[in-house]
Amino acid sequence: MLSVQVAEDLILNAIHPPQEGETVALAAALGRVLAQPVTSPGDLPPWDNSAMDGYAVRSACALSPDVQSCPVTLQVVEEIAAGQVPRHQLQPGEAARIFTGAMVPPGADAIAIQEETQREGDRVTLLNPPQPGFIRKQGSYCRQGDVILPAGTRIGPAEMAVLATVQALSLSVYPQPKVAIFSTGNELIPPDATLQPGQIIDSNQWALIAAVAQMGAIPIPLGIVPDQPDAIRAKMAAVIRSSAPIAQADLVLSTGGVSVGDYDYVERLLEELGGDIQIRSVAIKPGKPLTVAAFPQCLYFGIPGNPVSALVTFWRFIAPALRKWAGLSGPWGPQWVEGRSPQTLKADGKRETYLWGQLHWPQGRPEFHPAPGGHNSGNLINLACTNSFAVLPVGVREIPAGEPVQIMVLSSNQGG
Amino acid sequence: MLSVQVAEDLILNAIHPPQEGETVALAAALGRVLAQPVTSPGDLPPWDNSAMDGYAVRSACALSPDVQSCPVTLQVVEEIAAGQVPRHQLQPGEAARIFTGAMVPPGADAIAIQEETQREGDRVTLLNPPQPGFIRKQGSYCRQGDVILPAGTRIGPAEMAVLATVQALSLSVYPQPKVAIFSTGNELIPPDATLQPGQIIDSNQWALIAAVAQMGAIPIPLGIVPDQPDAIRAKMAAVIRSSAPIAQADLVLSTGGVSVGDYDYVERLLEELGGDIQIRSVAIKPGKPLTVAAFPQCLYFGIPGNPVSALVTFWRFIAPALRKWAGLSGPWGPQWVEGRSPQTLKADGKRETYLWGQLHWPQGRPEFHPAPGGHNSGNLINLACTNSFAVLPVGVREIPAGEPVQIMVLSSNQGG
Repeated sequence: MLSVQVAEDLILNAIHPPQEGETVALAAALGRVLAQPVTSPGDLPPWDNSAMDGYAVRSACALSPDVQSCPVTLQVVEEIAAGQVPRHQLQPGEAARIFTGAMVPPGADAIAIQEETQREGDRVTLLNPPQPGFIRKQGSYCRQGDVILPAGTRIGPAEMAVLATVQALSLSVYPQPKVAIFSTGNELIPPDATLQPGQIIDSNQWALIAAVAQMGAIPIPLGIVPDQPDAIRAKMAAVIRSSAPIAQADLVLSTGGVSVGDYDYVERLLEELGGDIQIRSVAIKPGKPLTVAAFPQCLYFGIPGNPVSALVTFWRFIAPALRKWAGLSGPWGPQWVEGRSPQTLKADGKRETYLWGQLHWPQGRPEFHPAPGGHNSGNLINLACTNSFAVLPVGVREIPAGEPVQIMVLSSNQGG
Repeated sequence: MLSVQVAEDLILNAIHPPQEGETVALAAALGRVLAQPVTSPGDLPPWDNSAMDGYAVRSACALSPDVQSCPVTLQVVEEIAAGQVPRHQLQPGEAARIFTGAMVPPGADAIAIQEETQREGDRVTLLNPPQPGFIRKQGSYCRQGDVILPAGTRIGPAEMAVLATVQALSLSVYPQPKVAIFSTGNELIPPDATLQPGQIIDSNQWALIAAVAQMGAIPIPLGIVPDQPDAIRAKMAAVIRSSAPIAQADLVLSTGGVSVGDYDYVERLLEELGGDIQIRSVAIKPGKPLTVAAFPQCLYFGIPGNPVSALVTFWRFIAPALRKWAGLSGPWGPQWVEGRSPQTLKADGKRETYLWGQLHWPQGRPEFHPAPGGHNSGNLINLACTNSFAVLPVGVREIPAGEPVQIMVLSSNQGG
């Protein structure tokens, strides 16, 4: 039984992100990961421009001994709106009306902000000497050729704006990982079937499809396979080595069949199919029977069938694997927050234990509230509406209320 | 000039989430927000079932005086796999082979886990008295009629699993907010045009489309409008009161035209069109000229045109409005984290100041690193690859290195 850390390392070592990017249009780039660094084709800003509405002036006009005592009155020789090219080189005694974003005319080296001027006809009076800093100098954000977005960057709103600004109309991004998902179990039925005594709805497939999609990967749902070695072997073989019409998956997730029962065939079948078994079980609760096998075409995760185990396994092990496969720059592991709980947290100390709950942030300080009800791996109901897991390391049977505890935080479900 | 908090309150008070839900299929429900609570149509689990592989037994068999001294040997009378219905009522001296998830047979009240038994032919020997707790009792997760997901819940992976489990094949969810977006400015061109001196690429539209989409809302991009009152008025009128082919927007975002310059028409035009001006400016840096007007059909945000101002305005004010409009249960405001920075953070103290940077979590403790380069509202370049803003309140000119600072955290771009 491997430690959680060793299991994570083995999984990440078995993930080999694709070397080749694919090309997407800018409009389709949100959420994708850059496969190539983006450099700036020119200086940004491309020319000096005004940061404020006001008057472009020669600071010598205001500061030279003869006009040192502001107010000083200047001739307004032109007006430069944003988007216009100045027509005039400013001479002593002259000013140009200018607006935010507009090009600074030659000869000007300061902006007198509108609030500190008085306009009368074609003359303007500067009430105070203009302050420096209201000109955005050419190249002050970046220089031509600078890397402005490194490879491995996930494209969000600010990155979209940067890409638009440098007119990057098509981009090289990493392909999205394709993840095949199926469930094993004689007891499983899809949610649109009628439940007979003893049967269970296959909820894992729905949870995993959602979890995969939420990460920007592509789920390939493949249904339910009964607990029969031939059926499972046939499905595995078709998925691992892409048998039409199934697309080649980069990761394969099956649930169930990994424990010690007479119907738990997954590990044996993976070996029969030539899988290099990396993990047979992990000292984690819930999720101990996780089985991971490497194939040349894909990495196979045999996930425990209990619904909480399946999602804990996903968030703790598979999400990092997907982040690495997606080409993101590391670290790929979960986000950890040191928080405190108003309740004492308990475990049996034998395995690294994940207790689910809500992380709140009163005054910006992380406070963990375990979900009410039983924390057993079958109890999917109280896993809903949680956003985090408090983690008790091996050997720790109790974290007293108010003491620090490491918390694995799930990405917000609140949408940005 | 309103405080940030007053502005946020005004905006949230002007948002009236829709009363009516719309129906979606379960497979289309990821990311949507429940408009109706979901109740359980039955007990969960629906019957007692085994949490382990092992043997279902009568604990009296192991614990009654005659067999108190385990080991005790029992007759295995049937095998119950998951999905099967037990055929036999357990009698004294009998056991049933059972697997995880299988129905517990009548008469049995404990599970002897496989690891603590020895099987020989049709008999099994219990090495230790069975421990309680390995039966998942009917109704122990929830009872028939219990609310298992409240209205206002965003549907993520665990919620999808719960919905599948209760066979909620179609769901009442809130409509997604529709957000019209356009940019104003004579200097603006789209990224596929050739940049002429003085012109600027309209990056704001790309940033806002991405930000809106990331929140699960529907962007309606409407291009660039020149700084001409008639053109802007016509676009505003068409958008505010849905003129075909433009769908009725719930929120309207325009950028530019809200400052004090001669070309800043937005506030005046909103008044002319009958808007109830809620906000004319906010004591925030960047983002001061934010203008907000309420119309019966929509809430209009006149957003400053500087690219950093536009995104800060979105994340600080518009994202909370979208969360409320989407029907999410509150709080709707940004997520705040109390962190520390290894650098002294500075502001002019006149407005609430947002400094962008990277929040890291060494040992789970939040540490803020301001983006290198200038923090001015035009410098989009160093806003890329940040994930948070350190906030200096009005009147605070410096937060020394290592002192607590409140940090507004953006949702992860790392995909789950």
